[in-house]
Amino acid sequence: MDFINTLGLAAGTLITIAFLPQMFQTWKTKSAKDVSFVMLITFMTGLFLWLVYGMILGAVPIIMANGITLFFNFIILWLKIKYR
Amino acid sequence: MDFINTLGLAAGTLITIAFLPQMFQTWKTKSAKDVSFVMLITFMTGLFLWLVYGMILGAVPIIMANGITLFFNFIILWLKIKYR
Repeated sequence: MDFINTLGLAAGTLITIAFLPQMFQTWKTKSAKDVSFVMLITFMTGLFLWLVYGMILGAVPIIMANGITLFFNFIILWLKIKYR
Repeated sequence: MDFINTLGLAAGTLITIAFLPQMFQTWKTKSAKDVSFVMLITFMTGLFLWLVYGMILGAVPIIMANGITLFFNFIILWLKIKYR
């Protein structure tokens, strides 16, 4: 794999796994009041549109990255609502 | 502009502007303890790699979207450190 693809893959992976520590912190502290509800909804809508975009193009990396990021943020949103 | 490009543009725009309400909420409440520090650092590293990726390819939309998102998250990180 050439440098530019490795760079893109690393970027996408970092952005996807970034929400794991947020998920665990919210689960552990039982608090997400400082996490903006409007941010979560807007961000998740954007991720969902990327997912549809990837599905139309049949682009597996776009589907994977946005699907997993959307899943993590869905859990963060669920925890935020649960612990409010 | 065709449908698929409009979809991608909408997705990118939503993800970028999603961090505006987070920025304003953090600035208003003076608290971001529930926003994971590890999430911010990992996310921003990913955005930075996308920015470099866009610069190498000379892809203006990738540079714009990731540059602005990185800027918003830099402010969120700065507010988090300031108000901790």
